Amino acid sequence: MRAVLLAAGEGKRLRPYFNRPKPLVRLLGLALIERNILTLRECGINDFIIITGCYSTEFRDYLGNGEKFGVSINYLHNPDWEKGNGVSAYTFHKDYRQDEKFILLMADHLFELDLLKAFLTEAKKIKQDELLLAADSRLEEVFDLDECTKVKAWENYAVKLGKGLDDFNAVDCGLFIGTGSLLEALANSIARGAYALTDAVNLLAEHGKVKLHFIEHSWVDVDDYPGYKQAERILLKSLVPAKDGFISRVINRRFSLRITRLLAATAITPNQVTFLSFLTTAAAAVSFAMAKPFIGGVLAQLASILDGVDGEIARLKFLKSSFGEIFDSILDRYGDYLIVVGMVYSWYCATGHTMALLVGAAALTGMPMSMLFKEKFRNVFGQPFIPEIHDGILRYFPANRDGRLFIIMLGGILNLLPATLILLAVGTHLQALIRLYNVRKAT
Amino acid sequence: MRAVLLAAGEGKRLRPYFNRPKPLVRLLGLALIERNILTLRECGINDFIIITGCYSTEFRDYLGNGEKFGVSINYLHNPDWEKGNGVSAYTFHKDYRQDEKFILLMADHLFELDLLKAFLTEAKKIKQDELLLAADSRLEEVFDLDECTKVKAWENYAVKLGKGLDDFNAVDCGLFIGTGSLLEALANSIARGAYALTDAVNLLAEHGKVKLHFIEHSWVDVDDYPGYKQAERILLKSLVPAKDGFISRVINRRFSLRITRLLAATAITPNQVTFLSFLTTAAAAVSFAMAKPFIGGVLAQLASILDGVDGEIARLKFLKSSFGEIFDSILDRYGDYLIVVGMVYSWYCATGHTMALLVGAAALTGMPMSMLFKEKFRNVFGQPFIPEIHDGILRYFPANRDGRLFIIMLGGILNLLPATLILLAVGTHLQALIRLYNVRKAT
Repeated sequence: MRAVLLAAGEGKRLRPYFNRPKPLVRLLGLALIERNILTLRECGINDFIIITGCYSTEFRDYLGNGEKFGVSINYLHNPDWEKGNGVSAYTFHKDYRQDEKFILLMADHLFELDLLKAFLTEAKKIKQDELLLAADSRLEEVFDLDECTKVKAWENYAVKLGKGLDDFNAVDCGLFIGTGSLLEALANSIARGAYALTDAVNLLAEHGKVKLHFIEHSWVDVDDYPGYKQAERILLKSLVPAKDGFISRVINRRFSLRITRLLAATAITPNQVTFLSFLTTAAAAVSFAMAKPFIGGVLAQLASILDGVDGEIARLKFLKSSFGEIFDSILDRYGDYLIVVGMVYSWYCATGHTMALLVGAAALTGMPMSMLFKEKFRNVFGQPFIPEIHDGILRYFPANRDGRLFIIMLGGILNLLPATLILLAVGTHLQALIRLYNVRKAT
Repeated sequence: MRAVLLAAGEGKRLRPYFNRPKPLVRLLGLALIERNILTLRECGINDFIIITGCYSTEFRDYLGNGEKFGVSINYLHNPDWEKGNGVSAYTFHKDYRQDEKFILLMADHLFELDLLKAFLTEAKKIKQDELLLAADSRLEEVFDLDECTKVKAWENYAVKLGKGLDDFNAVDCGLFIGTGSLLEALANSIARGAYALTDAVNLLAEHGKVKLHFIEHSWVDVDDYPGYKQAERILLKSLVPAKDGFISRVINRRFSLRITRLLAATAITPNQVTFLSFLTTAAAAVSFAMAKPFIGGVLAQLASILDGVDGEIARLKFLKSSFGEIFDSILDRYGDYLIVVGMVYSWYCATGHTMALLVGAAALTGMPMSMLFKEKFRNVFGQPFIPEIHDGILRYFPANRDGRLFIIMLGGILNLLPATLILLAVGTHLQALIRLYNVRKAT
């Protein structure tokens, strides 16, 4: 399926803040239109048509032929863009291929990846003369409702659309699956002197041809500065993975998302952040070894926070890689090792107790068991191990990395290294054995 | 698809050795027919018809309705079994369902799992009036060629079959995919007084209806005592996994297969062997700690050998389980840890060198890295990490478990614990880093 991006408007309200065409406004490291292209690429779309109007060379200069994104981008220009966005959308008829279904969207809107994925799944189900429109019926949550195009829906078909509609139960998200019938409706409505896309959609709605897909994820029309900030919030929130550890969710993400926001505009890569996180664990280890447990603890927690940032930046800027995933896993283990060695060194130097060595060995060997078990589980059962489901009562024990580093931070701050190491040693091995027992019981 | 197993014959030649119907002769822990049923179950077949003749109650008593194997078994009796195996095969017509394709095999033959899998894949391709026959064209490798039914093949169709054929280029493996046309041919040939299955197959061959599948795995007709021993050899050989470590392939399997052969007839489970292997590592660790490195080294190698036996018994007796796979992985890690701790303890007690502790920590943390990396690799890339392919020049460094335990054995026997630990520490971490580098380069 090809994607048609409408980027013909002037975007007056945001221009004073950024001095560039609105779809080229950078949000957390990527231009709005660039993010839409990359998000659609994640959904398997590789062929893009951009409709330009008020600005044209700016888009060509910035996006080129799409090669740098691994996609193909072509441009259609609408000199009459001022008449209305229906005229711009209609420009696509020059390139339309018989019986083609295409996804049409506003280049300056922000859509969550999962929103687009769910929408594209619905695309297969519409008839050749229908239009599919993404609609949001969660009115109390819609951002800047006044400015939205309202939709009067009956079941999952649109009855009427309009900005000034009084009786409505959803809003138009600016996202469509179009067929030839949309281009026909556009031609008809333009012939009657109605130049907005909504005019053509209304023509189709009159004949019961506008099917609605009620979205369940976030989107926003980035029309002004508050919209821009809202887009930033949505985007940052979307970076938190569904299965996140307790400490990570409650503490780390509050900091990591802030760091990610700061780093987004820079060229720093996820792998560089991974390495930075590793260096921080090394610094924590040295601090522990030099009998500065408070600093060591704080650095360990900082490393834990940075351990979230690499993934956030990877997801934010479409920089996920297989190497990055493995690199992160392996460096995390080395980070764990260094910290434990630093702590044991400190304890042993201070006391000379053989106990420190034994507990240290137990903690060292326990640290990788959680990952070992989870990876093996996933390979054997073909599905991820999810502590919340598979760990039973043990899910409250912080034996995942976020939890372990949190315990280390507490131990450092409170200067309780022996107790911390004993807790880590017992906890990690106990967890491995109980997990084994649970698998035994379940199979 | 249903399976029809011919078990009607008398099996005179093997009777003196085992005093039971030939398909019920136990080979490495399972009766021949039981193994065929379980092997076919692995291929997704759950519905079995057993044609009895000379013996009947013996089969019913041993196999029952199949519940204990998780399959359904029904029996058809042929009182005229002495006439020939064609009459026995024809007995199936009583239960034949319109247009059904079925797999027909001799209950007392041994077929490798991969042979049956490949054969069943071909089953889909034959026409409704054809017969598919498994044929072996590797004549120089065929066991007891004299006793085999020979096949004259032209391309992949049989022209003529017969025990006394002079001009032949393959032999009949006693394995068929039958259709209604086979039952018709059997009826015709029985009417003409020709009672052997081969007679009916020849009738079909005359009309070019016997398609051949040239097998590439091992099989044997267990007809006499040499055949029985040959079956044992084939079966044991098939237990060695394709991707086996160098030390494992060259040394360990020579011992582990012997142990497996001894244990096959007992009720010992793979998980019990896994635990036994773990206990052996514990004994090795204690030996090292008690300054008996020679014994420690030998026990470590024994544990390594036993580490192969659990998988062999699991494959041999269809006892593979998800829990077993995880249990083995986790216990292997604990075994590794114990041995290293024992060695470090010995070194440190003897010298008091801090160096022993540092090297020990490095070796302890290095031991699980190989598994960590491999499991993660498989999850990320969706395919197993194969040292022979992915490790480059490093594949010669014995950093997998069989190699590590071999190094430990040498270190123990030669009483070179410090050097062994240093080698393990450096080798395991170096391997992890080089593997990371290789992934980086390849992606």
